[in-house]
Amino acid sequence: MTNSVYRKIEVVGTSPDSISDAIANALSKAAPEAREGWFEVSEIRGHITGGKAGIYQVGLKIGFKIEP
Amino acid sequence: MTNSVYRKIEVVGTSPDSISDAIANALSKAAPEAREGWFEVSEIRGHITGGKAGIYQVGLKIGFKIEP
Amino acid sequence: MTNSVYRKIEVVGTSPDSISDAIANALSKAAPEAREGWFEVSEIRGHITGGKAGIYQVGLKIGFKIEP
Amino acid sequence: MTNSVYRKIEVVGTSPDSISDAIANALSKAAPEAREGWFEVSEIRGHITGGKAGIYQVGLKIGFKIEP
Amino acid sequence: MTNSVYRKIEVVGTSPDSISDAIANALSKAAPEAREGWFEVSEIRGHITGGKAGIYQVGLKIGFKIEP
Amino acid sequence: MTNSVYRKIEVVGTSPDSISDAIANALSKAAPEAREGWFEVSEIRGHITGGKAGIYQVGLKIGFKIEP
Amino acid sequence: MTNSVYRKIEVVGTSPDSISDAIANALSKAAPEAREGWFEVSEIRGHITGGKAGIYQVGLKIGFKIEP
Amino acid sequence: MTNSVYRKIEVVGTSPDSISDAIANALSKAAPEAREGWFEVSEIRGHITGGKAGIYQVGLKIGFKIEP
Amino acid sequence: MTNSVYRKIEVVGTSPDSISDAIANALSKAAPEAREGWFEVSEIRGHITGGKAGIYQVGLKIGFKIEP
Amino acid sequence: MTNSVYRKIEVVGTSPDSISDAIANALSKAAPEAREGWFEVSEIRGHITGGKAGIYQVGLKIGFKIEP
Amino acid sequence: MTNSVYRKIEVVGTSPDSISDAIANALSKAAPEAREGWFEVSEIRGHITGGKAGIYQVGLKIGFKIEP
Amino acid sequence: MTNSVYRKIEVVGTSPDSISDAIANALSKAAPEAREGWFEVSEIRGHITGGKAGIYQVGLKIGFKIEP
Repeated sequence: MTNSVYRKIEVVGTSPDSISDAIANALSKAAPEAREGWFEVSEIRGHITGGKAGIYQVGLKIGFKIEP
Repeated sequence: MTNSVYRKIEVVGTSPDSISDAIANALSKAAPEAREGWFEVSEIRGHITGGKAGIYQVGLKIGFKIEP
Repeated sequence: MTNSVYRKIEVVGTSPDSISDAIANALSKAAPEAREGWFEVSEIRGHITGGKAGIYQVGLKIGFKIEP
Repeated sequence: MTNSVYRKIEVVGTSPDSISDAIANALSKAAPEAREGWFEVSEIRGHITGGKAGIYQVGLKIGFKIEP
Repeated sequence: MTNSVYRKIEVVGTSPDSISDAIANALSKAAPEAREGWFEVSEIRGHITGGKAGIYQVGLKIGFKIEP
Repeated sequence: MTNSVYRKIEVVGTSPDSISDAIANALSKAAPEAREGWFEVSEIRGHITGGKAGIYQVGLKIGFKIEP
Repeated sequence: MTNSVYRKIEVVGTSPDSISDAIANALSKAAPEAREGWFEVSEIRGHITGGKAGIYQVGLKIGFKIEP
Repeated sequence: MTNSVYRKIEVVGTSPDSISDAIANALSKAAPEAREGWFEVSEIRGHITGGKAGIYQVGLKIGFKIEP
Repeated sequence: MTNSVYRKIEVVGTSPDSISDAIANALSKAAPEAREGWFEVSEIRGHITGGKAGIYQVGLKIGFKIEP
Repeated sequence: MTNSVYRKIEVVGTSPDSISDAIANALSKAAPEAREGWFEVSEIRGHITGGKAGIYQVGLKIGFKIEP
Repeated sequence: MTNSVYRKIEVVGTSPDSISDAIANALSKAAPEAREGWFEVSEIRGHITGGKAGIYQVGLKIGFKIEP
Repeated sequence: MTNSVYRKIEVVGTSPDSISDAIANALSKAAPEAREGWFEVSEIRGHITGGKAGIYQVGLKIGFKIEP
């Protein structure tokens, strides 16, 4: 149980609707190997289209356990 | 009125629902002495459970006035 | 088409309701010249009033193309 | 009253006398549009002339409300 | 004598007059438990009122020895 | 179980012997209220005495759950 | 001569050819008001097209003197 | 088209000739899966051999779209 | 020999005993493809259990050569 | 005139009186070789003695031209 | 006694055995002029040889008093 | 062979022509003692003269082995 090791990957999720949708997309589509672990938001950006926030882009660092 | 002084503390609030719920929890439960003041979001993290965002963890720096 | 140049400005939007409302306010009221471009969230802060998050303040760096 | 938006600009003030003089110069000469707002010191530098501090250069980020 | 431990707290002092007055206020009013120790300036900010530096706000991290 | 909140404090532990001793001292003497939680090493410093590392000083940020 | 003040702006220049071309484009097209001053490279990015560096994007902070 | 997700990887390219050659090498040899995307220069280093810059080493963060 | 390229990955190793054990675990279990290269410690954290340092968690950035 | 090169050194000056006195001391006593050049304030710290700011410690990075 | 000035230098010590050995080597071999003073660990890196931590490299900033 | 120690110095090289020329100047003129070692680019700046990049200034941290 002790001495576990973890891998960290970095992904970007997007959503036209909200920051949490962008996080959900990143987890489900860009990091399918990360079933149990944690994420850290590294940046929140977005497109501006016609003077409005078009698409949110949320960068995530994701850590997950490596099974032996 | 001038020469006020402020104390800053650091807390983490959590919520399974949203980032703003995690902020609200942090303010109401972890910083009851901070009735009037300001907060600065220092980190946004979360658990991944079953490949989905499980619980949001939001770190806050909180400043509030010290009454003489 | 190549060799475009961009200007970056910094603004703060506010909202009593949510972080994304604060972003929307910043884009529509503080950066009307940025019709097409991108934004980067640089800070998330807020007022505490009566022990609750009063007003969200979201700092944005905004980039937009300079027309020749 | 709520939903105010702010613009942030960056300036450098100088003074041969002191850091606060350099701040005062920056505010009065480089940011005349900022009548009410706030500043954040981003850097303190200076010239060395004949082995002594010659001129202080103080970088400021300045935020001020955009009137509708 | 060896193996001492220290606590660090964060405060903000203000003064309409000078940066060192703001530091002095922070130490005397916001950190009375810190009789012997050290401080680190973490930020220098201020209000702008009528186009002038109104009130200096100086953030300090303060470290002091914990008596056993 | 969900919606827990945490407080973060900052301490410095010292030891003439090793970095891990300094961490252990910080936890046992400077943060007795932190029974269950986590720490993050924020800085590793030390005294030099007679040209040798005299005393290690290790800064820690410590997070722990606030019981309701 | 002393007590000069400076304004700082932020721009992004691009070039398909080189980093210095991107800097030159930024100065000539995005900052025409900066005739005499200095620049600081804040980021170097680029497009990848067909597996190759397509267009360099160089962010610059530009400082220039404000004439009274 | 919306809701795209991206993976970010980190590589180091080298070249005895120039910084842009080191970037080109990194993209073609270390990130063959990144056909369309973007890069961000994270560090520029190099060897010194005989008192001269021997080999440039350029660190890149590379982002590219994950095809569903 | 020149023009080598390198990949960088990020891992976390843990150990109940020491920081160097956590580094050794990370290298042997989480980065088996990195036979020759370098590492950079990016963070040192740990669990607190019963008021003591329970398990050290050491984050590493690992670089290794990509064979052609 | 062009192609000048500069050396940068780092010093700490102290003063019981003020931040600018600490800067002046650093320049005159710790960097006598820097007759013409520039300085950048890297940190402002101090001792606390009897609950008051005892001695200011100001860290400076100093750059000066190397004569051929 | 007051108004002391300090010089800061930067060194890297190495050891195949441990982080504290690398610190000790740096102090005794790379900074013999620093008899009394302080150090700050600025980075911890290492070689990987045969999949194991080969040699620890520890960067130190060292401060020491300049005798008048 | 093991247990080597290194000194790090900081210099700025300049060139009217290119970033790599500025690096070459820094190495040959400002760091003649660094025959074998490494460099890290810490900043890229420049003069603006007549609206164009006049002189590149490249800051380098240079590490080199200390011979026993």
